[in-house]
Amino acid sequence: MASSSLTLSQAILSRSLPRHNSSNNSQITPPSQITFSGLKSTTNTALRRRTTPSSVAGAAVRSPAIRASAATETLLKTDNALVDKSVNTIRFLAIDAVEKANSGHPGLPMGCAPMGHILYDETMRYNPKNPYWFNRDRFVLSAGHGCMLQYALLHLAGYDAVKEEDLKSFRQWGSKTPGHPENFETPGVEVTTGPLGQGIANAVGLALAEKHLAARFNKPDAEIVDHYTYCIIGDGCNMEGISQEAASLAGHWGLGKLIAFYDDNHISIDGDTEIAFTEDVGARFEALGWHVIWVKNGNTGYDEIRAAIKEAKAVTDKPTMIKVTTTIGFGSPNKANSYSVHGSALGAKEVEATRQNLGWPYEPFHLPEDVKSHWSRHVPEGAALEAGWNTKFAEYEKKYPEESAELKSIITGELPSGWEKALPTYTAESPADATRNLSQTNLNALAKVLPGFLGGSADLASSNMTLMKMFGDFQKNTPEERNIRFGVREHGMGAICNGIALHSPGLIPYCATFFVFTDYMRAAIRISALSESRVIYVMTHDSIGLGEDGPTHQPIEHLASFRAMPNILMLRPADGNETAGAYRIAILKNKTPSILALSRQKLPQLEGTSIEGTAKGGYIISDNSSGNKPDVILIGTGSELEIAVKAADELRKEGKAVRVVSFVSWELFDEQTAEYKESVLPSAVTARVSIEAGSTFGWEKIVGSKGKAIGIDRFGASAPAGKIYKEFGITAEAVIAAAKQLS
Amino acid sequence: MASSSLTLSQAILSRSLPRHNSSNNSQITPPSQITFSGLKSTTNTALRRRTTPSSVAGAAVRSPAIRASAATETLLKTDNALVDKSVNTIRFLAIDAVEKANSGHPGLPMGCAPMGHILYDETMRYNPKNPYWFNRDRFVLSAGHGCMLQYALLHLAGYDAVKEEDLKSFRQWGSKTPGHPENFETPGVEVTTGPLGQGIANAVGLALAEKHLAARFNKPDAEIVDHYTYCIIGDGCNMEGISQEAASLAGHWGLGKLIAFYDDNHISIDGDTEIAFTEDVGARFEALGWHVIWVKNGNTGYDEIRAAIKEAKAVTDKPTMIKVTTTIGFGSPNKANSYSVHGSALGAKEVEATRQNLGWPYEPFHLPEDVKSHWSRHVPEGAALEAGWNTKFAEYEKKYPEESAELKSIITGELPSGWEKALPTYTAESPADATRNLSQTNLNALAKVLPGFLGGSADLASSNMTLMKMFGDFQKNTPEERNIRFGVREHGMGAICNGIALHSPGLIPYCATFFVFTDYMRAAIRISALSESRVIYVMTHDSIGLGEDGPTHQPIEHLASFRAMPNILMLRPADGNETAGAYRIAILKNKTPSILALSRQKLPQLEGTSIEGTAKGGYIISDNSSGNKPDVILIGTGSELEIAVKAADELRKEGKAVRVVSFVSWELFDEQTAEYKESVLPSAVTARVSIEAGSTFGWEKIVGSKGKAIGIDRFGASAPAGKIYKEFGITAEAVIAAAKQLS
Repeated sequence: MASSSLTLSQAILSRSLPRHNSSNNSQITPPSQITFSGLKSTTNTALRRRTTPSSVAGAAVRSPAIRASAATETLLKTDNALVDKSVNTIRFLAIDAVEKANSGHPGLPMGCAPMGHILYDETMRYNPKNPYWFNRDRFVLSAGHGCMLQYALLHLAGYDAVKEEDLKSFRQWGSKTPGHPENFETPGVEVTTGPLGQGIANAVGLALAEKHLAARFNKPDAEIVDHYTYCIIGDGCNMEGISQEAASLAGHWGLGKLIAFYDDNHISIDGDTEIAFTEDVGARFEALGWHVIWVKNGNTGYDEIRAAIKEAKAVTDKPTMIKVTTTIGFGSPNKANSYSVHGSALGAKEVEATRQNLGWPYEPFHLPEDVKSHWSRHVPEGAALEAGWNTKFAEYEKKYPEESAELKSIITGELPSGWEKALPTYTAESPADATRNLSQTNLNALAKVLPGFLGGSADLASSNMTLMKMFGDFQKNTPEERNIRFGVREHGMGAICNGIALHSPGLIPYCATFFVFTDYMRAAIRISALSESRVIYVMTHDSIGLGEDGPTHQPIEHLASFRAMPNILMLRPADGNETAGAYRIAILKNKTPSILALSRQKLPQLEGTSIEGTAKGGYIISDNSSGNKPDVILIGTGSELEIAVKAADELRKEGKAVRVVSFVSWELFDEQTAEYKESVLPSAVTARVSIEAGSTFGWEKIVGSKGKAIGIDRFGASAPAGKIYKEFGITAEAVIAAAKQLS
Repeated sequence: MASSSLTLSQAILSRSLPRHNSSNNSQITPPSQITFSGLKSTTNTALRRRTTPSSVAGAAVRSPAIRASAATETLLKTDNALVDKSVNTIRFLAIDAVEKANSGHPGLPMGCAPMGHILYDETMRYNPKNPYWFNRDRFVLSAGHGCMLQYALLHLAGYDAVKEEDLKSFRQWGSKTPGHPENFETPGVEVTTGPLGQGIANAVGLALAEKHLAARFNKPDAEIVDHYTYCIIGDGCNMEGISQEAASLAGHWGLGKLIAFYDDNHISIDGDTEIAFTEDVGARFEALGWHVIWVKNGNTGYDEIRAAIKEAKAVTDKPTMIKVTTTIGFGSPNKANSYSVHGSALGAKEVEATRQNLGWPYEPFHLPEDVKSHWSRHVPEGAALEAGWNTKFAEYEKKYPEESAELKSIITGELPSGWEKALPTYTAESPADATRNLSQTNLNALAKVLPGFLGGSADLASSNMTLMKMFGDFQKNTPEERNIRFGVREHGMGAICNGIALHSPGLIPYCATFFVFTDYMRAAIRISALSESRVIYVMTHDSIGLGEDGPTHQPIEHLASFRAMPNILMLRPADGNETAGAYRIAILKNKTPSILALSRQKLPQLEGTSIEGTAKGGYIISDNSSGNKPDVILIGTGSELEIAVKAADELRKEGKAVRVVSFVSWELFDEQTAEYKESVLPSAVTARVSIEAGSTFGWEKIVGSKGKAIGIDRFGASAPAGKIYKEFGITAEAVIAAAKQLS
């Protein structure tokens, strides 16, 4: 089916393509670089977009007829011929880059070039010279392996990050064009994709952020937040459970400005999707509350794609999924519509055959002048869009100083001055409490002072203690609220939070479940770390201390598993001061996600803990030694710090010089100077005992070859918590015995 | 809505319940214990079930009328009254056990007691005295928190694992009734559930196993494999992405004997599902290719439930989802239909009110004699069922000796003698190859000798190299084949493999993806480890050695994260001999899953590696020292062992006494004697250098405080593999420099 339509459309295409290549060098001077803040004022408001359906038809400034006037008239046979040419430019940039790298995925860009062109050339609002302009439309390539599509589009649109030399260094060391889209490498790329299904969930987060901010900040006379989120998802994304979770929430929330293109090409790595994927995807999305449109000819049906986008925008109360049937590797006479074009270079011979087939006479990486000229308008248009928005914002600022101050904080990421004063502090006389409860106190304190703070739990709000009491629920009809109800969807939750965090520097999402269920969302947490998304993971029930729920619910290896992960803070506070300290550092580290492991059970407020100490990761909370020479150092984290303190009390009664160190975060301790580390853990003192209700894996680093790590190297058990602690030997007695043996 | 129907049905129920409690002590003598093999012959075949629709109606032996004859006639007002009483027995066993533990989830058992009763009392075929009888129907409580439902049913049915004292020690240390269902604690529980969505995916694996074995072994005159798989899933399960993945595959494979009950009670922990879950679940399952039935009154509509099961069995080419609308906590006048009954004891007052409301005059944990008597027939009936099957099998064995030998091996888990001889061996002269390719050689060798070996990849068969060439694809119409196509569904894949592994001791499933994507399936892998499921995880592209795909695809912390997990073997073979050794040990460890981390890139066959050495986890592959006193020990794993060897060659040229140790599996090394460990890593030799292209986290344990671990403690990069190795310092030069510094 797909192959016969391919042959026909290719034949038409070959005939209609202009063959000559006269150049037009009329460069449009780029506007002066627009600063990141996006708050600079201009008076141009002509390009302001409205969201009512009538405005879609009214967006004539982007119609092909008017676009053509900006291009080189003599080169155009028809508008569609120029579109064809632009689309083939995208295809060949992808083909050539993959060929040069001899690595990569040409199939998707070749199939999705038409929708890519229509999105970046005709539909999206962005400013290539300021990829961080706040009110830009967001685009996510969920099928991230097809990244050459996005790089080609960014290149055509005039983004500085992707110049010709960047395309030529695709997938090479240090390039701006890595093997999958990475927001931290390439300005213009919103999120980090590649692991399938993450991107659509990120897009749900981006669209949630827009809906929330629009509801909070827009005024009848000032629509200051107003953009779409577009996404391309593939068969692989649609097979992943995470995409189902995110799509179910998008439908539930009625994210009307989320428009996802499903690249329905029937091919995945193992061959035809018939071998593993025969569900009715459209019907499923309808069941999830999406509006679904099918574009049957995604290869050359430009008008079908345009009409679908128009229809999608007209449906404002539901997200839209546009199923676009395409041919993977479109244009390759021998490899199109097969898995062989998915993830390998075409090879010189097939590249040549494809050039012949699509009538493409150019050298590798060539940008035909008419195509270049046509796309060149995006730089001035983008500048004008941003300038227009800046004017609007200046007016908004005058009329609504309070709201604009909040929104500015969200846009810039600058924290309101004095926010840290909101954090609670405790003394040893403060009542004992579970750190999950202390966490809630912090969350509620921070919610008052941080305008971009929002979040929720995966159906465990009342266990994780994550409700912000002054706010209602973010829902379809109350999107201005800040408590998010994720349902039992941990993986989607994490990835949605990545999208929220990467929407604006001042949005600080938190999300929660039981610590053991980080296993469900680990792929999203890893992308938080990699993509530098400041997501705060509120993970309660952090050990056997949860008791009766048993081993399926008791984390053992989880602390170790996150300590081994790069760029993430694993924090396990012991009491109120450390919980406040953990939140403080989690907020301050704005390029690093944090995980707070919190207890279900009550813990005493300890003498010596502090917000400042917590920031150092490891610090002395009590010591009766002198000269930095304790007989023994006892080291604890979280709920076991109390046990270390009790053991120290006993040992001191027996005359020992004992130091107690809280090791709330290994990563923060690693950041300290060698001098500081030596002051806490003097190398001469090898008598060290650690206690933590989790795997001992990794603790040799802290206690040394001669020390003793007390922990749990088996699965947990179902019983009351106290009983398990005792049976597993996580006790002061065990610490005392070990300390005596060593010192 | 639900609460008004609740009130009505409770009123009816209260009226119809008999109040007296005369006892009947006629115990039925249990048959002699039937051995596990399940192969003992008897002549009773009367209870043989057929799968044609007509047989459903014909299964009169299980109709209420006949059942009643086995019970105490005088106690029965109507059949439904006895069913009511049995259902309330289940409810109160759950209420009482949770109350006594003051911990647990009474809501689900109270709501699902009717479907539970109809399943275990009227529908399922099992032998309480041999929970491992091969041809039993399987039941999975995917909503595992409701485990008191299953414990109550196992108790009523006569399983030895759940006696009255076990119910009374619910959630206590050492009990057979832990807080969630655990197959390794409680015979009669098939799989380990609790983490939501796992159970339905396990059920898909169990149903896959049945369909596969039936297709392979049944004959026109001998239907030797023939059982159903039942499952109860909750709202939480249905929100999880893993359930979508598994359900999509179940529909694709047409698993007609999988029947899932969706406990549609509209309540999850955070309250009404309206706040986060408004998709049309039924329509979604239809889109996935399931047959969907809605039972509107799951609280008292016994006949509706029965009719639904009958209809489900009549649909043989699709799995069936029976949406059963129930009231969570049914019977509790003040807590039913609210989240408060989900996960906490009712409290003495509400227990009393519920007793009043349901007309239940008994002491806690009381089993009314008529109910007891009614259920008592399952012991003899179960024995007869198994005996009948044994007779059939004896006939089968005579007619089909070859097939029966294979099936016996699958049923008993006894490996065919000499199977290890199939493993390939290599010399240092054998050609260099990627361990993923060497893995494929092993997979294909094992496929020939292990009848229960089957598996596949999450859409990466051609990258993971996991196809068994002599077999076709397991598909709807070719279920006898053994290559499973999981699509891009890692999490579902892992949990389905858990189901396959726990179906029969001799089924050995393997599954594959890129090592980094273990993050997607970690929750399922953890349950493999906890539930002692011998799943072999074939994880290729195990480091930065995969090159251009970049940091989203390059595992860093993954080796450490699994080394920290209990009861799992993390194996990273370096060449052909070690790959064969890894497969050997993965097969032999029949209560432990294994992960094989395999290279994308070519590796040389090394001198000194062996299958036997691999079994020890860490072993010397070369040494020019004497007296167990090398100047330095170089330690490598997987693709970096080659680097250690090269470094050793250089150092030896310079006169150093160098030992090279392969550390293919930390867990296996841990199992060795102290003597052996000392022989490999003498404590006197502190000059130790390790090299591994992954996080150094944990390596202090091996190299000691004075050694040096060379590794990668940052995210990877997109570039050709060789370039990344060089830039990251994973080189022989780095090893040599470190060795010189230390020795």
